[in-house]
Amino acid sequence: MTEAGDTADLEIRREEILTAHHGGKLNIAPSVPLGGARDLSIAYSPGVAEVSRVIAADASLTKSYTWSDRLVAVVSDGTAVLGLGDIGPRAALPVMEGKAALFKAFGGLNSIPLVLDTTDVDEIVQTLVRLRPSFGAVNLEDISAPRCFELERRLVEALDCPVMHDDQHGTAIVVLAALRGACAVQQRQLAPLKVVITGAGAAGVACAEILIAAGVTDITVLDSKGILVPGRPGMNGVKADLAARTNPRRLSGDVATALAGADVFIGLSCATLPERLLATMAPEPMVFALSNPDPEVQPDVAARYAPIVATGRSDYPNQINNVLAFPGVFRGALDAGATRITERMKLAAAEAIFQVATDDLAPDRIVPSPFDPRVAATVASAVAYAAG
Amino acid sequence: MTEAGDTADLEIRREEILTAHHGGKLNIAPSVPLGGARDLSIAYSPGVAEVSRVIAADASLTKSYTWSDRLVAVVSDGTAVLGLGDIGPRAALPVMEGKAALFKAFGGLNSIPLVLDTTDVDEIVQTLVRLRPSFGAVNLEDISAPRCFELERRLVEALDCPVMHDDQHGTAIVVLAALRGACAVQQRQLAPLKVVITGAGAAGVACAEILIAAGVTDITVLDSKGILVPGRPGMNGVKADLAARTNPRRLSGDVATALAGADVFIGLSCATLPERLLATMAPEPMVFALSNPDPEVQPDVAARYAPIVATGRSDYPNQINNVLAFPGVFRGALDAGATRITERMKLAAAEAIFQVATDDLAPDRIVPSPFDPRVAATVASAVAYAAG
Repeated sequence: MTEAGDTADLEIRREEILTAHHGGKLNIAPSVPLGGARDLSIAYSPGVAEVSRVIAADASLTKSYTWSDRLVAVVSDGTAVLGLGDIGPRAALPVMEGKAALFKAFGGLNSIPLVLDTTDVDEIVQTLVRLRPSFGAVNLEDISAPRCFELERRLVEALDCPVMHDDQHGTAIVVLAALRGACAVQQRQLAPLKVVITGAGAAGVACAEILIAAGVTDITVLDSKGILVPGRPGMNGVKADLAARTNPRRLSGDVATALAGADVFIGLSCATLPERLLATMAPEPMVFALSNPDPEVQPDVAARYAPIVATGRSDYPNQINNVLAFPGVFRGALDAGATRITERMKLAAAEAIFQVATDDLAPDRIVPSPFDPRVAATVASAVAYAAG
Repeated sequence: MTEAGDTADLEIRREEILTAHHGGKLNIAPSVPLGGARDLSIAYSPGVAEVSRVIAADASLTKSYTWSDRLVAVVSDGTAVLGLGDIGPRAALPVMEGKAALFKAFGGLNSIPLVLDTTDVDEIVQTLVRLRPSFGAVNLEDISAPRCFELERRLVEALDCPVMHDDQHGTAIVVLAALRGACAVQQRQLAPLKVVITGAGAAGVACAEILIAAGVTDITVLDSKGILVPGRPGMNGVKADLAARTNPRRLSGDVATALAGADVFIGLSCATLPERLLATMAPEPMVFALSNPDPEVQPDVAARYAPIVATGRSDYPNQINNVLAFPGVFRGALDAGATRITERMKLAAAEAIFQVATDDLAPDRIVPSPFDPRVAATVASAVAYAAG
């Protein structure tokens, strides 16, 4: 938001936004000619019977003769929409349409939004299993934690196609890419960094997981009740598991305890970070204040302490934007005919995003622009290679 | 098929058909600009949050700010695909893509194909109820009888949006329009016609129903075991109900019995009609041999007995093509904000198709061309008016 903070401009923007979304944001068009009787005989009856016969005889030819194999279903139950929470499937739909639009604009993939009038994990799994022949991949979106972890796991088991919850893994991939970029700028190694993640929801958990996979050993994760540490009350299964695999110094307490001497702050919690705590971090820290629309700490404040600051916003440098990851990740997985999106593929995606950034690295350019046309293609080929 | 009967050309066509269907027949594109950071802030994060908030506060605004309200889901379980039978959802998908393409090309409506890996009516209803916020109407397609009757009835009850099984009602609407056209050519009244319908599946039952609604009183329907007459063994509930409301002369027997003295033959059964039976019909009969790709009787043979002959094929005059009906029917229903497609709306659609044909009626022009641009618009406005 280029006019952020200017209330008058923001109010104008509201009208502009509503106007832009009028009637929705997607358009479907035939990709075959339908202008005459012969066209119709080829595309529809009787010609299409030939295509149906071919697929009936060999189901694998669905790939060749339908759109489904490269179609991404963007699926949400509307339980954790942006920062708005559980606002339901109808209110989630504008976001899912936007996501589908981005899949085409950035990844060249067709995508349909499917919003579900149920929040029951069993029912969501069952619904997508029944719809399986209609699509080629599932992008889960805006589904609340901890249900999102079980839902993704169950769908990965149930469906023989790529499934990824973007709020988890898209964010994690871009955070890792940005951390690599920041390390390159500062000529530091990634593995020894002391990392603090606030938020143990979808994004926080996935960020911790990808950083573990990337070799970072000192990660401290906090939820609203404080640091995740084995034995702490009030942790669900996912948090308990994460507590056991992070926090090697077995810290307990609040964000002040966690942040003292830390190299990296990754905010994924919507909580505010008091400025005084920034002063307690290790020298030359990295601050990723990723909550949207209000970062945990204002970037200009963070910049007084940290040479590298990232946010989730497009109006500040170093935007951690999932669009750097998901179009290429799905494209690469589908190009490779992969049935899973593995940790290896996610790491490859992060590495590819970082590689695109290396051309032009600087403290305010640790990730590429989302509009850099090399990104999706580079990510896609790295992911496809890692899938092989 | 302009080259019908020419084997060499037909073989070329097979390759041409498969090539045309490669990669599917639909393309989704954003309808909003996404070329820069400001575009992204409006269409996606953070701007889209404003749209989600608006809908969360007032669900009826889903109509204004998403595509769903005018999106037709083309739904099939692949149990009765064209003349190919139960070939499953994957083999059905090319047909559903084609249908979705026609919705856009002829009705200006966005449409997504959804093929279901279940044939259980309860499960199909449940799936579409869960997906309800994703679409604005349901076109059922290629679902076997008698399940299709129960499924349509249950969905009409369960969903607050237009639902229509096109194999039933699309066909019925166009048949009625064509009969009106034929009557106008022959300067006859519709109601007194003696009509024989072979086939008591989706199309046969719906044709009988719309002709009853249009005032035709002497209708005889046959299934593969003969004339439907009360008390006959081997009839499901739908057939028994239809037997009670048709066949006023309580005929029983085969098609020879039914056709003696009949004015109209409507073939919807794939069975062949022996030429000698045509000679037993009333003077100046109408023969609608609608099975595809092989009509019950060849049109040139039928023409020896009947001044008006119609088929389902595009390479003969008087094609009974559902595309004359479904784009305008759904368009009109959605334009009117209707939650049902009523008998009145179907009759209005048939009347509108007939009205477009009246300009240029002739024995070989009892229905308009599917490419007549007036058709969908005329049908849509008639249907919307009838919905009010």
